[in-house]
Amino acid sequence: MNTTPIERWHQIVQTRDLPGLERLLADNVVFESPVVHTPQAGKPITTQYLRAALHILVNDSFRYLREWHGLNSAVLEFETICEGILINGVDVITWNTEQQITHFKVMVRPLKAVNKLHELMARLLQESARLGS
Amino acid sequence: MNTTPIERWHQIVQTRDLPGLERLLADNVVFESPVVHTPQAGKPITTQYLRAALHILVNDSFRYLREWHGLNSAVLEFETICEGILINGVDVITWNTEQQITHFKVMVRPLKAVNKLHELMARLLQESARLGS
Repeated sequence: MNTTPIERWHQIVQTRDLPGLERLLADNVVFESPVVHTPQAGKPITTQYLRAALHILVNDSFRYLREWHGLNSAVLEFETICEGILINGVDVITWNTEQQITHFKVMVRPLKAVNKLHELMARLLQESARLGS
Repeated sequence: MNTTPIERWHQIVQTRDLPGLERLLADNVVFESPVVHTPQAGKPITTQYLRAALHILVNDSFRYLREWHGLNSAVLEFETICEGILINGVDVITWNTEQQITHFKVMVRPLKAVNKLHELMARLLQESARLGS
């Protein structure tokens, strides 16, 4: 595996490679949402949140703008439009020595975007729960 | 001036050096808030927002957690507690070849923190306007 976790993340965003997402996440990965304070711990819940985020955010208007790289972490700034609301955000991604993501934090601005994302995530996660998927 | 804009920013945060803040900002600096979409252009309004942000966010609980550096930009992650609400955020700072800040963007999470910051910023800016300062 010669690609970095960030290169693999970009591939997953482009191709919606959900099995690839499973492989990229460490078992003890933690997800921190732009909406809720409490960290979500573990691969199943993190996968659920990231799948929902990809579904909601990654449309034709989605694009990554800038990146900043550290030794085992990076910040990716993105922009997208959801239901007419411009969402500007960052993914703050940390990985371990096995090149698996251990921490995935998202922040978005402005306030309207946080509220829109909250609404869309709640709707999608409720729908998923109702369908048992 | 051998220090980088980020080192100078840290000094300003630590010492509340407001004249230093004036010198660090380019005349055409743009501020983008975690609350409002519209960018705020120019040194006077950016100075006003950053002074207010320093006043509100930088208390005994404030600390910078991590940094990511690019060639002419950096991301600084911070954490603070304001009126009992934990605020986790990033400063995304860009500078020009004269080592002056040209763009200062802030995002915070979670939703409660965006709302608290909105409330505190509005209160402070109204108070400043009323006092004519």
